[in-house]
This record gives sequence, structure tokens and C-alpha cells, in this order.
Amino acid sequence: MSFITLTTDFGTKDHFVGAVKGAIYSELADAKIVDITHQITPFNITETAYILKNAYRSFPEGTIHIVGVDSELSTDNKHIAIALDNHYFVCPDNGIISMIASEIQPTKIVEINIHDRVESSFPVLDVFVQVACFIARGGNLTVIGKEVRNYKKLTEIQPKVNQAQTQIIGGVLYIDNYGNVISNISRKMFNEVGKGRPFKINASSYTFDKMYNKYNDIVESNTKTSRQFDGNKLTLFNSAGLLEIAVYKSDLTSVGGASTLLGLAYRDAIIIEFFNEYKPEFTPLT
Amino acid sequence: MSFITLTTDFGTKDHFVGAVKGAIYSELADAKIVDITHQITPFNITETAYILKNAYRSFPEGTIHIVGVDSELSTDNKHIAIALDNHYFVCPDNGIISMIASEIQPTKIVEINIHDRVESSFPVLDVFVQVACFIARGGNLTVIGKEVRNYKKLTEIQPKVNQAQTQIIGGVLYIDNYGNVISNISRKMFNEVGKGRPFKINASSYTFDKMYNKYNDIVESNTKTSRQFDGNKLTLFNSAGLLEIAVYKSDLTSVGGASTLLGLAYRDAIIIEFFNEYKPEFTPLT
Amino acid sequence: MSFITLTTDFGTKDHFVGAVKGAIYSELADAKIVDITHQITPFNITETAYILKNAYRSFPEGTIHIVGVDSELSTDNKHIAIALDNHYFVCPDNGIISMIASEIQPTKIVEINIHDRVESSFPVLDVFVQVACFIARGGNLTVIGKEVRNYKKLTEIQPKVNQAQTQIIGGVLYIDNYGNVISNISRKMFNEVGKGRPFKINASSYTFDKMYNKYNDIVESNTKTSRQFDGNKLTLFNSAGLLEIAVYKSDLTSVGGASTLLGLAYRDAIIIEFFNEYKPEFTPLT
Repeated sequence: MSFITLTTDFGTKDHFVGAVKGAIYSELADAKIVDITHQITPFNITETAYILKNAYRSFPEGTIHIVGVDSELSTDNKHIAIALDNHYFVCPDNGIISMIASEIQPTKIVEINIHDRVESSFPVLDVFVQVACFIARGGNLTVIGKEVRNYKKLTEIQPKVNQAQTQIIGGVLYIDNYGNVISNISRKMFNEVGKGRPFKINASSYTFDKMYNKYNDIVESNTKTSRQFDGNKLTLFNSAGLLEIAVYKSDLTSVGGASTLLGLAYRDAIIIEFFNEYKPEFTPLT
Repeated sequence: MSFITLTTDFGTKDHFVGAVKGAIYSELADAKIVDITHQITPFNITETAYILKNAYRSFPEGTIHIVGVDSELSTDNKHIAIALDNHYFVCPDNGIISMIASEIQPTKIVEINIHDRVESSFPVLDVFVQVACFIARGGNLTVIGKEVRNYKKLTEIQPKVNQAQTQIIGGVLYIDNYGNVISNISRKMFNEVGKGRPFKINASSYTFDKMYNKYNDIVESNTKTSRQFDGNKLTLFNSAGLLEIAVYKSDLTSVGGASTLLGLAYRDAIIIEFFNEYKPEFTPLT
Repeated sequence: MSFITLTTDFGTKDHFVGAVKGAIYSELADAKIVDITHQITPFNITETAYILKNAYRSFPEGTIHIVGVDSELSTDNKHIAIALDNHYFVCPDNGIISMIASEIQPTKIVEINIHDRVESSFPVLDVFVQVACFIARGGNLTVIGKEVRNYKKLTEIQPKVNQAQTQIIGGVLYIDNYGNVISNISRKMFNEVGKGRPFKINASSYTFDKMYNKYNDIVESNTKTSRQFDGNKLTLFNSAGLLEIAVYKSDLTSVGGASTLLGLAYRDAIIIEFFNEYKPEFTPLT
């Protein structure tokens, strides 16, 4: 049995997703196809990289992940197949893989050459499905195309650290379904740079100086009800290991979430300052 | 083969749903995972209870239903596993189960104690998946945690009847995809209180005195086309057995639905009056 | 193993889709159920016909396609089951099938008569699931109902050609997830009428005189980056074989797509003129 996942910007209304699934089942009737998402903002590589990185690891080893975001072939945008961390990725070479590959080295990358025969405005259907099914049947990557060493890297996803090691200058990577604001600053970097020092997180005009373990930790243990904390802002490292600014029990469709309440959008700055010698007067939490 | 369903407020864009499915397949490669919905309004327990109640019954006996809505652990919000009506539910103890359990007595409820080992901001992935897969492999609920007698109940979902038995005071429970307004008044209560008497339903500034069997019954049999009835308001008991105010061939994105045309929202009052001795002058249907 | 697809206007929030899937699995535990879409605009037959036509062909032969759009039974709206192109369709007789059947003759159409026993406001759950599972188990269509010769046809989806064979008068059939505008003019008709002559496509106040093979063909080969072409308008035949007006790297949520930028909506005119004797001065592309 083969697992094949789909991560695309196709949306769920058009015929695209159905057509791709039908084509996979026509080749491999017993495949297990799993949607990671089809709601990627059209052509948004950073979103894709973030979502894919945090979903793929849960799947069984050997799973084949098809990525259909900005996937039309051009001289600028090759198609590649990658073996990495005992998973396979069939995708355009546009940076999608770089958040995963920055931590785990690919074991093999090949440039798909099946296009010599296929001219297509729908390469996920016409090319990626064939490649994924070929891999699922045990085919070797080197038959799909010639091995290459490099893949395209996203640079905007890397936060910077100043020379004095007192600041991490990061940014907003993603806004999730609850309006929670996810930064590109990892727990690992926070610990390595911060070394346990007191800190102040600056985002929009708000500051934070405390890190929670989970959302409910904002609810004080001596209270009878958690309702009075609804709408409170907090910072924590989320399940992806990244610094997140959240609003307790947020809902973008009614009370709003961190993104709307703090006015934060994709790529806005999030800066952490660390303090060495004295604990400064913190701006009180609101 | 095990059936596992998912009902969450995760949305379908983030990595959450993909991660949960991957984790289930990693434990149980031949599981059948079915999405009930991931579009619950964040943290809305009533919506969840309504949708879950009307979906679970269709599934084969033994199906395990994972519910991920307001599921973070707190002293206020335990995690429970329930056996009920030959189905299993793995969910927070926040009232989600109370619409089902108000009609069918649970056979067993246990408080999940696996958390002693897991500190998590993503308990569906880190706790519920493990519990569901344990049940799917035939594991006994009592191994998961200690048996408890009670579960949290939603009170707002119960309509009231006045002492004279001439009024049912209910409210809006849910607005569906077509803008149809679903009340908390069941056909059973309507029949038991009404006993066949004439009635008037009051909702917003509109009244209704007729109950249809299905939407198309509004189309009169001597007409050639149904088009002229598009946009007409009607009341019927829907497939969930609840009083519904509908607009014939409604579409929230263009002509509007009952919710927008009548100005009805979640929790607004819907009142049925029954008449004993004389048939009153009804407000004419519009 | 049986493949059953679902194409509905149910949306993905309500209990409808979950209930239908549960009912299928209760009858056929090893069925493979695939969502084509649940996002059809409520009651929109043309959209359904377009999406279904372009998705069904990818599926394995013998797949059963359930269509739940405007499916409530009435004297106006029978329920039918169709064998066509080695696929099965279980649907209302409201024109949904006519885009497929206009090219490929159905081998059998029967009018479902199971309703004699079922009064339902949710016929997909109460009728279509039973019919689909009956077919999946090898049941014969003639047991489901009496054979009929005709099915309802959509007329609006057919473009016209003028007598002089110099014009195709078509219209907008569908707007896709990227805002691309899909017409009802096929490559086949374009070739048969145009016979290689120069042409001008008129849509809203814009004109086009070039046909691309794929989106990236708009990027000139001597440029280093494709970014400068973002937002350019182009025409091509899409993967469904229909004339499409697209905007390169469009996104309806930010920069806009062809539909918003050109102000084109469902049913707006798209007209192609062909030129015989002299190449006219084209309006320059913008």
C-alpha cells in the first residue's frame, strides 16, 4: 500500500483535485491519497514550505508527497523528485522544499525529464502523478531524471541575529486558521541566543516578556472559569517549534485573532531583545 | 478495518489535519479516516454537538470519532473517551457529546490519563490519535483512564415549554450552507406539545402556520415551472428531525438565504404558539 | 473495490457530507470514496456540469459518480442513473449530465423508482447512496428503474457560429480558483471554424490575438526572471480544452485574477472574430 499526499493551491471547488485523484487511482487502485491542503494562497511558496514541513513528518516512511504550487515548467522552474528523511517529494524546484531540507539533507535529487514528451498546462496531472506512481511501484529516482546537487532556497524565511547576540530579528511566516501569528523564530534559536536571559518580544506596538507552554497556561490556577481570559494575548512555541503570538480562544470571524487584533501580516517584523545586566522595566502586558 | 472520523475547527489550510491523518496512518496503515468537518467555528461547542449528532449515526458500528474543538487540556476541560450507541468518541469534556447523550445513554465514560506523560499544545495529535488507535486495535476503555459517571452538559440547546402547554420557546441552533435556519425544536416535541393543534411559528418579524414535508412541496402541483417559487420561505422538519426555516433554492452568495433574508442568527428566539379553542386570524404567509 | 465520487453543493461544514460517507461505508466497507467537490454554488447546474465533465474521465472505469446538486425529487426533477463511457452517474435529471453526454452517447438511462418507498428531504443520503451501492455490488440498472431515452439538456452552454463562419459567439462558463475565466468555446470548434485564420478575441473591453500553449509561454525566453510578467493577461486552451482568459500568477485574494481585472462574470459574452482577406490592425495587447 502506498501513501501519496497532495499539497496544492488548487482550491477545493474546481475539477483539479478530483482529476488528480482519479488519475492516481487509475494507476494505483489501492493507493491511499491524503490531502494535506489545497488552500495554499496561489503561488505562495513560503506558506507551502511551512505547511509541508509540519505535516510530512507524521506520515509513514516511504510516503510520496506531491506539491502543486507554481508548478508549471519553465527554464526558471524545473520539476524535481527528492528523497529526504525516508520520504519522497515530487515538486517544482521553487524553494518549497527548502524549509525541510535546511534541517535534513536530501539523499537524492533528480530533475524530472519526462517533460520531453509532455507539453502541459496541468503538470501535476500530466507529470507528477506519473512520477509519484512510478516511485510508489518501487521505481528508482535515477530513472526519472538526472541527478542534481542543488535545489532553490528561500532566503526570506531565515531570521537574523545581531553581532552582540542581543537581538533576533525575525518576521511573520504564516497566519493560521485561528489568526495566530507564526514567526520564523525557532525555539532552538531562541534558546541558543537567549541562554535563559530575560527577554522582550516586540511585534507591532505590542510587547511580551513571558513564554507559555500551552494556550491554557494563561488561565490562572486559582480561577473557577477560563472565560475571563478569552481574548488575552500570549506567546508560546507552537507545535511546529516556532514562536507564535496567539489570542486565547480567538475566532477571526467574530472577536478576531492575533493577526487582526495586533495588525500583523505576512513578513512584518518580530524582534526579540535579550537583556544582560539588569532586568528592564517591562511594558505591562495588556 | 477501522473507521476513524475527524470533527475539528482546524480549517483545511493549516498543517493540522494532514499531521493528524499522517499520525493515524503511521499507527494503523489500513485505517479509513473520514472527515466529518474541519470548518467548525473556532471553539463553538453547540455547532460541534449538532454536526456530530447528525453525522455519526450513518457510520458503521465501532467507528471511532475524534473531536478536536476546544480540546486543550485544563482543570476545566478534561479529555474523555466514551462508548455510546456502539460508537466511540474521543473528545474534550466540554459538552460536545451532550446532544447525542441526551437521547442515548453512554455505556462507558473514562477520563483519559495518558496526559500524565504528555504536555501538549496540540492534544489531538499527541493524545487523541493514540487513544483512537488503541481503541481501534481492540483496546479496552478502562486501560485509557478511570471510569467517570458524568460529562459536561450544554444547557442552551434545550427549548422550553410553558406551563399551559401552549408555547414552545426555542432558539436558533445552527445556520447551514444554504442559509437555512435550524432551531432546537424537534419534531417529537412539536408533536407531543402540539397534539395536532393549529400553530403559529414566530421568528424575527415573520410567522408561519404550515409545515412542509420537503422543500419541493412548496411548488404547487398545477404549475409548469418551479422557478416562480424560488425565494419563498417555508418551514419543515429537516433530515435531523429539527424545525428548520428555509428559503426555496437559496444561495447565500447571491439571492441570500433564510438567515440573511429573515435576519436570524445563532441563539435568536423561535417561538411556536398552539391554539386550542378557535383558529385565529393568521398573519398571511409572505 | 468500488470507486464512488461525490459532487455536491453541500459545503464542507454541515453534517451532510459526513453522513453520506458514513452511509456508503455502512453498506460497502471497502469502497473508495473520493470528493470531487462540495463547493458548487448552490443549485448551479452549469458549474456542476463543467466540473463533473473534467474530473470524471480521470477515474477508473466502473467508477460511480453521485451528484447532489438540486437533487430533491419533483415532477420537474426526476432521479436518474446513467451508464456512459464505462462510468456510472447517479443524479437528478436537471442537465448536469448534458456536457458529458453531448460528446459521448449514454449507453443506458433509467429513471430511479425507489422513491415510491422513500419520502425525503435528503435524497442523496436516502436514495442515491442505495442506488450507488447497488450498482457497486454489480446490480443491473434496469432493476433500479425503467429505461428512458431522454435526459434534460442545458442549452446555455452551447456557443453559436454565424452563417459567414467569421464569428464564434460564446460566453463565460466558469471562473476558477485563480480567477481564470473559462469560456464555452472549445479548441475543436476554434480550429474547425477558424481554419488557421488570424483572429481577435473580444472579452469585456479587452482584445487578444494570440493563443499560448501554456501559462509560462508568456515569459520571453531571453529574460532572466519571470516576475516582470506577473499580472499579464493571456489566452490559451486550458486542460479541459476550453478557451481560457488568464492572468499570469493571479491571486484573487491580493492582486486579483482575470475575472476581477477584466470585470468578467458567468454568462458574459466572449466573441472570436476570424479574418479572411487582410490582417486588420489589432488593438495592441495590454
